[in-house]
Amino acid sequence: MTPTDLEQRLRGVGPERYHHRHRFHLLMHEGKLTRAQLQAWALNRYFYQSIIPIKDAVILSRSEDPAFRVAWRKRIVDHDGDGVHPGGIEKWIQLAEATGLERARVVSGAEVLPGVRYAVNAYLELVSKHSFLEAVASSLTEMFSRDLISLRVDRLKLHYPWLSGGLTYFNARLTQAPEDAQFALAWVTEHARTSAEQDLAVAALRAKCDILWAQLDAIYFAYVEPGWPPPGALLP
Amino acid sequence: MTPTDLEQRLRGVGPERYHHRHRFHLLMHEGKLTRAQLQAWALNRYFYQSIIPIKDAVILSRSEDPAFRVAWRKRIVDHDGDGVHPGGIEKWIQLAEATGLERARVVSGAEVLPGVRYAVNAYLELVSKHSFLEAVASSLTEMFSRDLISLRVDRLKLHYPWLSGGLTYFNARLTQAPEDAQFALAWVTEHARTSAEQDLAVAALRAKCDILWAQLDAIYFAYVEPGWPPPGALLP
Repeated sequence: MTPTDLEQRLRGVGPERYHHRHRFHLLMHEGKLTRAQLQAWALNRYFYQSIIPIKDAVILSRSEDPAFRVAWRKRIVDHDGDGVHPGGIEKWIQLAEATGLERARVVSGAEVLPGVRYAVNAYLELVSKHSFLEAVASSLTEMFSRDLISLRVDRLKLHYPWLSGGLTYFNARLTQAPEDAQFALAWVTEHARTSAEQDLAVAALRAKCDILWAQLDAIYFAYVEPGWPPPGALLP
Repeated sequence: MTPTDLEQRLRGVGPERYHHRHRFHLLMHEGKLTRAQLQAWALNRYFYQSIIPIKDAVILSRSEDPAFRVAWRKRIVDHDGDGVHPGGIEKWIQLAEATGLERARVVSGAEVLPGVRYAVNAYLELVSKHSFLEAVASSLTEMFSRDLISLRVDRLKLHYPWLSGGLTYFNARLTQAPEDAQFALAWVTEHARTSAEQDLAVAALRAKCDILWAQLDAIYFAYVEPGWPPPGALLP
């Protein structure tokens, strides 16, 4: 495949298995989730947010190219902040607080669903143990996130106006994610040369979609339908 | 805590969160699962079975005590076989075949639910990255398995007589699991001396229960209620 063909194949993964199609998001955007369900989502998804800079530090640690590291380092700043302006993790805590949760309860991670925890750890394993190409390619879900976040911000404001004070995370991601995706896509299409490498890149992107999907599955099944949280999980 | 107190606390984890309480098992034992649902269970649970000797080899690799290694090695033989008699993995394949699945489809692992895959890998991570004491303690779910397997064999024969040719796995486990549990329990109660170590041992056993529970959650939610498998999963 040419780089353009590969890009098309990578972009084709989104409609097929990105989590914008997940029933939990559909309900969220239709205004059909309760405050308790949004709490469960914010608390569990925080665990994912909290490992993103760790994931990016793993990728940074595996690159031998200073230019790559400089470009990739931006992601860690975006999530951890620059010491003056809050980063994505802090903004996600503000979102969780807007749902009515206390900061300490969110940050402790004690009530995170095991299914979410395992999926998040699978992401760390993917970027640590698979090839560097796969680690970078797994970030390409950001190609699909702008449309989802853009829709989400509109619908959250419309259906859950009490959440409005907690949306700064998403506003920042509207520009950060496309920038990051553009760099990663250019890198992957340049470096995945052989057919085997191209297949690995596509598989890594699908694997990352599965990781996102599995988190929403765990939340949906525990708190929406059938609504059966495992022993020890958050009871909102 | 004395070793006896610790044993009581460890035994107390079973009634609280072992997967004999999981709705999937309750339905199984009431004869309410379809053949397709038993196929999904056998195929997914095979992935767990297939890593057990790998998990035990990790534990073996972390022990500096030849006597411990000799005792623990038995588990690998139980699952991989001795070259003449089939081990647990082969017997589980026979169970999956009795549900109507082809061997190659089971062994490939291609259709395993992501949620099951992540939970199984969390078990490998537990025994690899946590303390040796926690790795050993996580095996103590075998204290609870005899009663579950004994009930299961009776009910499978009663409700799903077409499965009867595939039950040799469970017959072997009725004696293997209690032997293994007895050794591990004696080791844990002897080696978990401080209060912190005892807490870690209990937490590891609970974490292992969560891993078993999460596998059944993934299977139940995908194939029973609401019956919504993620993209790419087995459609029985």
